Amino acid sequence: MSKEIYENPDLKKERQNCPFNKEEITHLLDGGKEKTIERKQLENYILSDEQLKDAVPMEYLSHADKYAEELRKACLLMHKLADSPAGQVPTLRALMGAGLGSAVLKEGNPLALHYVMFIPALMGQGTIDQQAKWLEKAYNLNMIGTYAQTELGHGTFLRGLETRATYDPKTQEFILESPSLTAYKWWPGSLGKTANYAVVMAQLYTKGKCEGTHPFMVQLRDEETHEPLPGIVNMWLNPVCISSYIHYGTYVKPTNSKLSYATMVFVRVVVCQDVTTNLRKAVTIATRYSCVRRQSELKPGDREPQVMDYQAQQNKLLPPLAATFAFQLAADHLWNLYHTANNNIEQGDLELLPDLHGLSCALKALCSSEAANFVEVCRQSCGGHGYMSCSNFPRIYGQVTAAETYEGENTVLWLQVARYLVKTRKEQSGGLSVKYLIGEEKGPKTVDTTLEGIVKLYRRAAVGLVDVAIAELDKSGRKGEAPHDAWNHAAVYLIKAAQAHARLFVVESFVDSLKEGKLSAPVRTVLSQLCELFIIYWLLERSGDFFLCSNLTKQDLLLLNSKYVELLAAIRPQAVNLVDSFDLRDEVLNSPLGCWDGNVYQRLFDEAAKSPLNQSNVHESFHKYLKPLLKSNL
Amino acid sequence: MSKEIYENPDLKKERQNCPFNKEEITHLLDGGKEKTIERKQLENYILSDEQLKDAVPMEYLSHADKYAEELRKACLLMHKLADSPAGQVPTLRALMGAGLGSAVLKEGNPLALHYVMFIPALMGQGTIDQQAKWLEKAYNLNMIGTYAQTELGHGTFLRGLETRATYDPKTQEFILESPSLTAYKWWPGSLGKTANYAVVMAQLYTKGKCEGTHPFMVQLRDEETHEPLPGIVNMWLNPVCISSYIHYGTYVKPTNSKLSYATMVFVRVVVCQDVTTNLRKAVTIATRYSCVRRQSELKPGDREPQVMDYQAQQNKLLPPLAATFAFQLAADHLWNLYHTANNNIEQGDLELLPDLHGLSCALKALCSSEAANFVEVCRQSCGGHGYMSCSNFPRIYGQVTAAETYEGENTVLWLQVARYLVKTRKEQSGGLSVKYLIGEEKGPKTVDTTLEGIVKLYRRAAVGLVDVAIAELDKSGRKGEAPHDAWNHAAVYLIKAAQAHARLFVVESFVDSLKEGKLSAPVRTVLSQLCELFIIYWLLERSGDFFLCSNLTKQDLLLLNSKYVELLAAIRPQAVNLVDSFDLRDEVLNSPLGCWDGNVYQRLFDEAAKSPLNQSNVHESFHKYLKPLLKSNL
Repeated sequence: MSKEIYENPDLKKERQNCPFNKEEITHLLDGGKEKTIERKQLENYILSDEQLKDAVPMEYLSHADKYAEELRKACLLMHKLADSPAGQVPTLRALMGAGLGSAVLKEGNPLALHYVMFIPALMGQGTIDQQAKWLEKAYNLNMIGTYAQTELGHGTFLRGLETRATYDPKTQEFILESPSLTAYKWWPGSLGKTANYAVVMAQLYTKGKCEGTHPFMVQLRDEETHEPLPGIVNMWLNPVCISSYIHYGTYVKPTNSKLSYATMVFVRVVVCQDVTTNLRKAVTIATRYSCVRRQSELKPGDREPQVMDYQAQQNKLLPPLAATFAFQLAADHLWNLYHTANNNIEQGDLELLPDLHGLSCALKALCSSEAANFVEVCRQSCGGHGYMSCSNFPRIYGQVTAAETYEGENTVLWLQVARYLVKTRKEQSGGLSVKYLIGEEKGPKTVDTTLEGIVKLYRRAAVGLVDVAIAELDKSGRKGEAPHDAWNHAAVYLIKAAQAHARLFVVESFVDSLKEGKLSAPVRTVLSQLCELFIIYWLLERSGDFFLCSNLTKQDLLLLNSKYVELLAAIRPQAVNLVDSFDLRDEVLNSPLGCWDGNVYQRLFDEAAKSPLNQSNVHESFHKYLKPLLKSNL
Repeated sequence: MSKEIYENPDLKKERQNCPFNKEEITHLLDGGKEKTIERKQLENYILSDEQLKDAVPMEYLSHADKYAEELRKACLLMHKLADSPAGQVPTLRALMGAGLGSAVLKEGNPLALHYVMFIPALMGQGTIDQQAKWLEKAYNLNMIGTYAQTELGHGTFLRGLETRATYDPKTQEFILESPSLTAYKWWPGSLGKTANYAVVMAQLYTKGKCEGTHPFMVQLRDEETHEPLPGIVNMWLNPVCISSYIHYGTYVKPTNSKLSYATMVFVRVVVCQDVTTNLRKAVTIATRYSCVRRQSELKPGDREPQVMDYQAQQNKLLPPLAATFAFQLAADHLWNLYHTANNNIEQGDLELLPDLHGLSCALKALCSSEAANFVEVCRQSCGGHGYMSCSNFPRIYGQVTAAETYEGENTVLWLQVARYLVKTRKEQSGGLSVKYLIGEEKGPKTVDTTLEGIVKLYRRAAVGLVDVAIAELDKSGRKGEAPHDAWNHAAVYLIKAAQAHARLFVVESFVDSLKEGKLSAPVRTVLSQLCELFIIYWLLERSGDFFLCSNLTKQDLLLLNSKYVELLAAIRPQAVNLVDSFDLRDEVLNSPLGCWDGNVYQRLFDEAAKSPLNQSNVHESFHKYLKPLLKSNL
């Protein structure tokens, strides 16, 4: 007889009579049944390796031990690449991301920048000769590179970088140097201890004239000894890196600036997918825990109910659950646009680029900020247990909130999006994604609270908030302010307008995907409920914008309020089945609160038992510090 | 010649021509000039002790080393108590809190619960005999206690606790036991490794009958060897504690349940003050850094401007700056009410208690959740550097967000507040703080956007949202739902109503304090600007509530929008002077980004140099893992 697998009875009940096929949703999210099979094969291959497991949870180790342990596993993973059942490129992608990769390298992959930035920089910006020289070496990991742009005193603003590359016509070499403390390269991952090469962004000086920022290949460390090369002062701390150098570099010639633009778009789509994966993890952990946890009293005298049965808890968890679908479908939509645009670019047609750039900025800023907020709500919904390191919420949050800053700081992105919106609205001309800003389509006199009606409201709000921002710009203009001052003094409005634009894109993508997607009736039903819940939720969160920009009445709002709470109740019974459909393995969730079997308390207990402090009854510090205090009769 | 003290030139400029006396604000926040002097003396006394400084920053240590190091400093602090210039009780308070205490014990004071929970439990709940037996011992630190209520499977709901205390009439002792895994005491700080006694909450069983939860004194460890006593299984992990015991306890008889109610109110006021102190730290760090950091471009061709000159940055930082005053003044107001109520209680008059309880729940939930959000905004406003451990934002955030769960989980508190509001509104009778819910005062037909006018709008919103919740309750009632179901199905509305009530209290406290306070004209001017900024900010954040519940028009909203951005510009020049007025020492801020001298980049560099990984050029892991990989020709 086989050993029976434990399943928490409350979760078992949640899973009974699921009205839809969970695998259909899994395949939808993975991008097809074949992709699901491939993913599962790869997960089995990687996660069955005992050497990739942590003997002691990372959070108990010192910083230096954490680094060594993560490096050990990262190197081992690379050795496993050759035999990967999914092939090298898909495996690499899976190992860098918030899914499988995070199950092994919980603090992030120390070799990530080699693949995500260094190799793409060589491919996108190197000459054929340079690629011949370095690409194979990089692919074979005979060199480990990183991409060094951000400096201690300089981030977003490329033109502000201080690192200099001075051309010496005699030697035909470039001398790279950090002229000041604020010029130290800071932040590039792996720079401090791991990488031995870097693509370094620097101001190019020839004949005493600055020619702007350009990329240079710089060797940082000896390939044999790993000692820093002369002139390179190098310090590492997670994830911060400092490097001061006076060194010779090789100029990496940008081949096509439009192409590197496309790369930026690509990276932002990946960021959206990654934060969505992280949000799925948070929602899964919180939802399962909320169905296992019993707390307080609903009906006087009854057993403590599942926390999930409180409307207040549904209000916390079902909007982020719906958001995981909204964000994924919007990212898929953008991904398709990216491929169309990329094909066009290769044929010399750059028309879609501004549109694509605007959407990728908007979606990256929106997904990262909303996902961060939602992850926090999920964590808080688990009370004290969500606060524990082992819940994995702190780490998930750390990764999602980092995405608010990297690859374009969100506020900077919002203002870039706003510039495109204002230009379109004023000039009455722009790409596909901003067509709704052209013309004077007034919203309907009375509001219709069907799905289509609500989407119209989002469009009204997006148009209206651009108009409010333009009115503010015009007001400053009439006061005689210079355009750049007027722009700054309208920033609060401009950001709001950009956010409304991004929300509209997400809402339209969600509604359109359901309309166009091939879905079984039961899956369509539950996804439609999630869609309606989500777009009403967002509207209620910012109802003031809708009052301001449309004919929304108090009665309409109360009606939407009622619909919202009805949808909470309607979706509640499927919450566990929906997160099950994400098909996230326990190793990926990495949280005793969220495991499939719901054996929460035993797993928490086991996790605590792993603490090195719990290996003895009396810690040595008792004798050193505590006993003298207890005996001192203060 | 004395060595000149460095001051960043941008900060120096910010500090020139300050129109108000910074010390006046410092005294206001400290509670008088004498308190400021006392605080500074104590800070000098504690922070000049070299032994209380960290040789290596905490974040680089392993978990066990962190525990030992924090315990070392905590014990040393206790030895210093006797000679403290401020006296023992004020010193203890300062050492437990988010101010001075956090400068030494960055991960929290391991002896905090001894003073904050254990001793108060003895004082509030012990008999005279018990106090004679234990209090002196506890004061002299001959015993170290904690308070063990929360269990692995049980938190908020006291009646759900599983720990049992069974009276044995033969021995006249109580046998305490954890009957299951979920009954393990979990979370009580110090329980695992530090405390040797605990006040344990347990279900009392006599003659086979459960008499509800009562406190018991339990010895956990041998006073000499610190070994756990027989039957006590004890594990420690920060801040989680587990204890399973079958042990004999002494019943601690509650003397006055109303008094313990008052203690709960007191603790919640302290929580409000603590999260406000933490918010002040975050705002100070972010504001100073934003005036030192130069980034991007405002006027084409100009030098990179101070980040603080962007309206978008002012929009992030000035509302939390204003909030520190709003929360502090509201907490002061509640503190005064507490003292009045406490005097009345001692004279047998309990009338103020429900009011006080409601306000303390509301203010604790509001301050902790808003402060957590604001701290995050401050952190994000510092870009990548705000993400670093050494910025101190992660720790500040961790401490503030914990307050959303402990001492009453916020959602639970909101629903308690709502119950009081609904009762008052329905019965048209209630305490002073809810008097505005009595009667049918309709808001004015047209909105007046003066300070008084806006306060009226807050009152309208608070009344209106209670009415919306009651309408929902009535609707469910008409559908035949039982009252507890109807209550649950209105939770979303009830929470909103409770939040509006809490906001009204904060807003009124702020306006009234300025009206009544003795302030110089320049201080009054700047605080009035902050007050107006803050109450408009909150209104704009939730303008939908005001559209729904008052006669606010689109034009009114646009007018308030304009006022808001004008106030941002008006307060901007005083931002640094205002945070200087908080008078937070660099050791308390504990962040290279926020130091008084603004020497941000040098301090960041110095901080990085402290990393143990940066003590060598090549980490040993290179030879073990990286070199074999580099040479393997994958």
